[in-house]
Amino acid sequence: MLTIFALKGIPEILQGDDLAAIIGDAVGSLLDGDIITVTSKIISKAEGRIVLAAHREEAITQETVRIVATKKHPGGVTRIVENRLGIVGAAAGVDASNTPDGTVLLLPVDPDGSAERLRAALQRRFGVRLGVIVTDTLGRAWREGQTDVAIGGSGVLLIEDLRGTQDSQGRTLDVTAPAVGDEIASAAELVKGKSNGLPVAVVRGLSHLLDPDAAGGRVLIRSAEADMFRMGANEAWAQGFEEGRAHAEQ
Amino acid sequence: MLTIFALKGIPEILQGDDLAAIIGDAVGSLLDGDIITVTSKIISKAEGRIVLAAHREEAITQETVRIVATKKHPGGVTRIVENRLGIVGAAAGVDASNTPDGTVLLLPVDPDGSAERLRAALQRRFGVRLGVIVTDTLGRAWREGQTDVAIGGSGVLLIEDLRGTQDSQGRTLDVTAPAVGDEIASAAELVKGKSNGLPVAVVRGLSHLLDPDAAGGRVLIRSAEADMFRMGANEAWAQGFEEGRAHAEQ
Repeated sequence: MLTIFALKGIPEILQGDDLAAIIGDAVGSLLDGDIITVTSKIISKAEGRIVLAAHREEAITQETVRIVATKKHPGGVTRIVENRLGIVGAAAGVDASNTPDGTVLLLPVDPDGSAERLRAALQRRFGVRLGVIVTDTLGRAWREGQTDVAIGGSGVLLIEDLRGTQDSQGRTLDVTAPAVGDEIASAAELVKGKSNGLPVAVVRGLSHLLDPDAAGGRVLIRSAEADMFRMGANEAWAQGFEEGRAHAEQ
Repeated sequence: MLTIFALKGIPEILQGDDLAAIIGDAVGSLLDGDIITVTSKIISKAEGRIVLAAHREEAITQETVRIVATKKHPGGVTRIVENRLGIVGAAAGVDASNTPDGTVLLLPVDPDGSAERLRAALQRRFGVRLGVIVTDTLGRAWREGQTDVAIGGSGVLLIEDLRGTQDSQGRTLDVTAPAVGDEIASAAELVKGKSNGLPVAVVRGLSHLLDPDAAGGRVLIRSAEADMFRMGANEAWAQGFEEGRAHAEQ
């Protein structure tokens, strides 16, 4: 049995706030094996990762290591980019929802580090083993709508590698590696919601996924080299076209 | 509070089995607003969507409407395709895990229809309003590991369209549409697992997502025309190269 509940009573987070103390006060108690999911937005706010909306485009550029695809639409240009955390998504995670007027938020500097500090503080306070997952909302290729994913974590497996284990017929599962970090983030989104200001949820019943040595958010990132979709179709076509033309003109 | 539990006691499903009766017997009781998630595999088995493994490649071809990308690897070729349901994924959903030896399973003929029939039968039996989601496991662009998604549904919103609603600062959310169907499928996967033969889970606490007129699985599909990643980067590059060369040679 898996139970998930959002914490009530998390106030608006300001730069310098002690998130572990605030979350600890809001939750009251935790059980051994609980996983705490925290929306990256409140970590960014506590870290002061906020810039003026007028500087939004510069901020996106600074957070970007590689442009994957762009698309013009009536409201401007959507930039799908790989950001400095390796995550491919719109606008490098620079976000204007639920932020003070006239400002936008950047992603946390080091989501794994934030998760680790939060986990250490909450484990000390409650005397139990915990996992922490830092979440963000991402669009996807091929599918409409967004889902929450894990962009950082501590103390909990983000990928459950089942390769080599057996199915119910006794055959080896050779490619199965559920992205449990992303699945936990998605499950938590169902109780946190987007518009109701509930940035923290407790996921109870997955203690088998706890591992103090678990890898952080990078384990969920496919490298551009290994990715069949490392560029948008239009961008790849245009690059091919130029090279084809140059090749013919040689 | 969201609670999710897998049903124990679902036997190996055979062609012609009455899934509604089997699930109803296994669950015993359901509450108003419960969402039942069912792994597509057992629907395929009940429908007899099984072919000899020797015919796997033909089956993939028959299920495919469009090849998106291919990649050679030591074990063969991975084909990422759009299947007849519009879903982009590996091998058109043709699956060899948890199937009888020497066979592979195709996806259900009509996952929405299967969900609808199951919902009608379980609602009659238990006298409560229900949602049903049919799930499958998909890989993703850019991210490692797989997550479960909704490939069909009945009676439950698969996308929660928040566009036009307001955030905590009173500003309009303009692009937010959580793919709750996929998030529910992912949440359920956390209790069903891949290797332990638990194909059905009950998701309790999301009755606000119930809607008897909700759209089916197609609502989660982005059309190829609207998709920035409608082709693999290599495929798009190669097409551009040929057209660029032909253009220069004119």
